[in-house]
Amino acid sequence: MKFVINRDHLVRSVQDVMKAVSSRTTIPILTGIKIVATESGVTLTGSDSDISIESFIPTEEEDKVIVEVIKPGSVVLQARFFSEIVRKLPKDTVELEVQDHFVTTIRSGKTEFNLNGLDPEEYPRLPQIQEENVFKLPTDLLKNLIRQTVFAVSTSETRPILTGVNWRIENDELTCIATDSHRLALRRAKIETNTFSSYNIVIPGKSLNELSKILDDSNELVDIVITENQVLFKTKHLLFFSRLLDGNYPDTSRLIPTDSKTDIIVNAKEFLQAIDRASLLAREGRNNVVRLATLSDGIIEISSNSPEIGKVVEEIQSELVEGEELKISFSAKYMMDALKALEGTEIKISFTGAMRPFLIRALHDDSMLQLILPVRTY
Amino acid sequence: MKFVINRDHLVRSVQDVMKAVSSRTTIPILTGIKIVATESGVTLTGSDSDISIESFIPTEEEDKVIVEVIKPGSVVLQARFFSEIVRKLPKDTVELEVQDHFVTTIRSGKTEFNLNGLDPEEYPRLPQIQEENVFKLPTDLLKNLIRQTVFAVSTSETRPILTGVNWRIENDELTCIATDSHRLALRRAKIETNTFSSYNIVIPGKSLNELSKILDDSNELVDIVITENQVLFKTKHLLFFSRLLDGNYPDTSRLIPTDSKTDIIVNAKEFLQAIDRASLLAREGRNNVVRLATLSDGIIEISSNSPEIGKVVEEIQSELVEGEELKISFSAKYMMDALKALEGTEIKISFTGAMRPFLIRALHDDSMLQLILPVRTY
Repeated sequence: MKFVINRDHLVRSVQDVMKAVSSRTTIPILTGIKIVATESGVTLTGSDSDISIESFIPTEEEDKVIVEVIKPGSVVLQARFFSEIVRKLPKDTVELEVQDHFVTTIRSGKTEFNLNGLDPEEYPRLPQIQEENVFKLPTDLLKNLIRQTVFAVSTSETRPILTGVNWRIENDELTCIATDSHRLALRRAKIETNTFSSYNIVIPGKSLNELSKILDDSNELVDIVITENQVLFKTKHLLFFSRLLDGNYPDTSRLIPTDSKTDIIVNAKEFLQAIDRASLLAREGRNNVVRLATLSDGIIEISSNSPEIGKVVEEIQSELVEGEELKISFSAKYMMDALKALEGTEIKISFTGAMRPFLIRALHDDSMLQLILPVRTY
Repeated sequence: MKFVINRDHLVRSVQDVMKAVSSRTTIPILTGIKIVATESGVTLTGSDSDISIESFIPTEEEDKVIVEVIKPGSVVLQARFFSEIVRKLPKDTVELEVQDHFVTTIRSGKTEFNLNGLDPEEYPRLPQIQEENVFKLPTDLLKNLIRQTVFAVSTSETRPILTGVNWRIENDELTCIATDSHRLALRRAKIETNTFSSYNIVIPGKSLNELSKILDDSNELVDIVITENQVLFKTKHLLFFSRLLDGNYPDTSRLIPTDSKTDIIVNAKEFLQAIDRASLLAREGRNNVVRLATLSDGIIEISSNSPEIGKVVEEIQSELVEGEELKISFSAKYMMDALKALEGTEIKISFTGAMRPFLIRALHDDSMLQLILPVRTY
């Protein structure tokens, strides 16, 4: 293998595939990046066996030569060293050449590295995916779908299925749901598909977080292909594979209350800041719990106290309080996560009593909702 | 105690004195910030008993009211909570009022915190310093003096005196020296003093690092007062006290070679980047050691290798190589630290043989020098 490549393109591709490389792996070759040069360009692959990322660098882009492949071939290089080396090379172009025993020479200007490489034949093959059932999402919408749900997945392995986000596709609508059984985040979106099939899959939260980091902020379409045990996200030069979680995701629809006894509408930013302040002291006490009480004249009181440190009380003027009086306690962290996920300047919170789950929604947007279970303190 | 204060001024002062507060202290009251309100303004104090920082907020600044003191008094509040609370308060002004048992009410808008405070009488007194022997340094020069020497102090407590920077004042000249016995950094500066006394003190490296963080980037003069066991740095609204290290600093003048056998002049940035690249592999091997060899025609070769990972060789075109041929090995980290500390685009390195300490200087600047002991590998 021998090729000359534009350094900036190489650096970017290496950074992308590095997101899948874990230093803590039981399969030594997965600490490496696989590099394959063909006549059409160079492909880099990184994988931790749950997530695999493939980045393709074409020989030309917009009439500019990016790679000149002198001899096709392949090698696996230690990801950590290779990524640091390419970032620090002195010139705009880099030459890579595989010598005997996979020793690879990396040249740039008057700098020459010789890295011990590994046999690419030992690198695991990526899943072969039939691209029949494809649907498309704009990159920015995909990133929003992830951001607004993934924080609510469970971090505990007691119920592994809850560490993933449930994606359901039916009638050209995608519904994403995450819950750790104390709170739930839901987001719906219209999608374009080429099929009438419906899907019900669970994607590991970790995969979605990594995917979100790797996607740029554009509205270009991402192709999404679902198979029995894998999901593939395809952008122009990037393939992102993730395994799916085994098992049935619980039916959460019964959890979401349909009626309410108390509704409040507040300014989202003001409310978030009040909860944030109350949580300063709540964090020290048990479970970061703050209290909310409706007072007269649409005033809402947020409070918390920690006997050793002190207490905090503050009042917020709501835009609307409707229904029964209410005193309720909940996790400040869950509330802040939910408020950050929602968009919009005004939010509506619908309660059905101090011990029942409550709903938080942006005022004029039905596509997303957040649900939180209260904590018993009163 | 009761006063109303501008929030931004309070936030800045709290941030400054927080630099001296340690969460790991054996004296519980030092986890707090002492607040004293008098008719002339509010003084905050933080201390870890090695370093103490006092910040004064005057009642008026540039004809604008900053503090309105309603009732003089004092209290000690938990630093961690107090600092987070003031940062997150909703309005531009904050009211502080001490109630019974040092419980302190912090009000801003519709937010009210009640923090359990401590008795200010239990807070240790700051050293009383006679301001007789004062000298002055511009802030930016002081920060440079620190930056260019403090990185070379020892991090090991085997010889505690080497964890500090030696400041010597004689004939209106200040000399700052730091060494960990493997490398040495020296910087000289002319100063203005009101005395003919000479001083020889050792300031803990940690104190200088904290001082540097707290100083802004201006050329305003800092007053420096030295006593038997304390040094005080005074800016407009800030007092920074540090204890001095006990003991005699070693005489380092004999270590600095006066002649040389090989001199090289190189571009500082190019040389730093080459060492940085070589150290990528050296870090894995023993002690991060890189090799330098003079070749013909003024070419300098930098190399390193790590049998398991690979090797790197690169050539630099020097501007001058004078004297004997040379092969020498040294710590890449020490060299990079030294190069970052020096200013100037060209540097001169003077060697007196492969096993003798060598000097690194900016080409046309005698006020600073860096010395490194080589490592035996050839």
